[in-house]
Amino acid sequence: MRIATYTAKGETFYGAITDDGAIALSPDFAQWPTLYDVVAAGALEQLVEAAKDRAVTHTEFDYEMVMPSAPRILCVGVNFPDRNAEYKDGSTQPKYMSLFPRFASGFTGHNRPLIRPPENHTLDYEGEVAIVIGKGGRRISQIDAYDHIAALTLCNEGTIRDWVRHAKFNVTQGKNWDKSGSIGPWLVPFTDASQLDDARIITRVNGEVRQDDVLSRMMFPIRREIEYISTFMTLQPGDIIITGTPTGAGARFDPPKYLKPGDVVEIEVEGIGTLINGVEDEQ
Amino acid sequence: MRIATYTAKGETFYGAITDDGAIALSPDFAQWPTLYDVVAAGALEQLVEAAKDRAVTHTEFDYEMVMPSAPRILCVGVNFPDRNAEYKDGSTQPKYMSLFPRFASGFTGHNRPLIRPPENHTLDYEGEVAIVIGKGGRRISQIDAYDHIAALTLCNEGTIRDWVRHAKFNVTQGKNWDKSGSIGPWLVPFTDASQLDDARIITRVNGEVRQDDVLSRMMFPIRREIEYISTFMTLQPGDIIITGTPTGAGARFDPPKYLKPGDVVEIEVEGIGTLINGVEDEQ
Repeated sequence: MRIATYTAKGETFYGAITDDGAIALSPDFAQWPTLYDVVAAGALEQLVEAAKDRAVTHTEFDYEMVMPSAPRILCVGVNFPDRNAEYKDGSTQPKYMSLFPRFASGFTGHNRPLIRPPENHTLDYEGEVAIVIGKGGRRISQIDAYDHIAALTLCNEGTIRDWVRHAKFNVTQGKNWDKSGSIGPWLVPFTDASQLDDARIITRVNGEVRQDDVLSRMMFPIRREIEYISTFMTLQPGDIIITGTPTGAGARFDPPKYLKPGDVVEIEVEGIGTLINGVEDEQ
Repeated sequence: MRIATYTAKGETFYGAITDDGAIALSPDFAQWPTLYDVVAAGALEQLVEAAKDRAVTHTEFDYEMVMPSAPRILCVGVNFPDRNAEYKDGSTQPKYMSLFPRFASGFTGHNRPLIRPPENHTLDYEGEVAIVIGKGGRRISQIDAYDHIAALTLCNEGTIRDWVRHAKFNVTQGKNWDKSGSIGPWLVPFTDASQLDDARIITRVNGEVRQDDVLSRMMFPIRREIEYISTFMTLQPGDIIITGTPTGAGARFDPPKYLKPGDVVEIEVEGIGTLINGVEDEQ
């Protein structure tokens, strides 16, 4: 089952995506105006059940960022061994993970272009698995961590590389350009540990494989991410964690291979889907 | 005029604060469930007008974080000359400001305790002026910047210092402990440039002055903050920018003067108010 936010004939809906089209589930559930509200209310399962009895309502539609009103998106940086080595600063595996928030405005949806701004052309891709919290909690143990995940989706954690290094201590301004990244195409309910433990992530640019790795090689596994983050902040249903990208982003090539208009980036994880985005210059 | 979010008899309201008590303005304005919704709708002035005709409704109430549902809070780091020197890394004035987001969950309200967690006791204060965006925009010029501010408030940008350095590139985990900081007591509408240009910020701990500086000494003035941030992301009404703290945080003393249960921190800016918070160990 796939649940997405999409636009059809100028109106935005959330609903289930089938091979034949979209089954609108909003606005019938008026208590939940957005897909974020559904997840925040712990009602994703209920929504999935409701979809089973319904027929396709839209055969033509455009995907939106999967939960456009999600207020809390937290990204894990430098989470594969070779990526840490890429920084060439002689550091061994760090004791703690790097974390940074991104605002929802920094992401577009599936099949929409990443936007390259006029100020800087070092637009880069990062393929990642994103988890959506379904049950909140503080100081969650690694053993219990998966019980707190409602759904999975994919992220192109697009970045303006030059701006990541503008400031001493933070990557904020390189990670929050309007629609420089993408989340989607849809939410897939998380029902089995193997959906994460056996997952392999492949990123292609214009068909060429740039990233190809398995989540089991993460320095900080997703269970540890949930444990660590929930130490300092209470996780809430609807929180999104972008779990980390493998080696092979464009900045790591010599010379760097940054994205340019006309490029197409695909991020594929079997069992979740393929997130596809072109690239356009800002109009 | 002062507009706050507060709780009375177990119910949360937003309303105007007078010397005699609070004038509830919610839930009459059902189209705006929260004070954030008021500001996001560009309706703060309308709310202020409505308060003028009304009587006090609550004489006993507790302040909440001023806009508990604000989804986007962006902090400017290291923004006074002596603070940059405090880092003793030989760096001259940086070319760009340091920026990091904080989630609303990291803040409590006026007259409520900052929470010191059991994991780490390096809880520290940072007195700052916060601006609330009233008119959105992208690539806003410094000349126009003040036209985009709806209101001012105060922030104790409370921090768990040891956790700020957990990660290589980001301060996220030291800056987002539940209720480790505070925003309030209220919003004061921004009507005149002198409210910022002539502002002096004083932070006291148990009555002792620890920070005392004027906003005109910022390395990156508020007009520049708005210009720079809006270069990469479209500012939206309801966004909060925490503009930077003067030298004198507890970490800078030798030995450091971290906050402990029973301490009282006051942050005062004439024309805005005084934000007061005690300190408690987490229960």
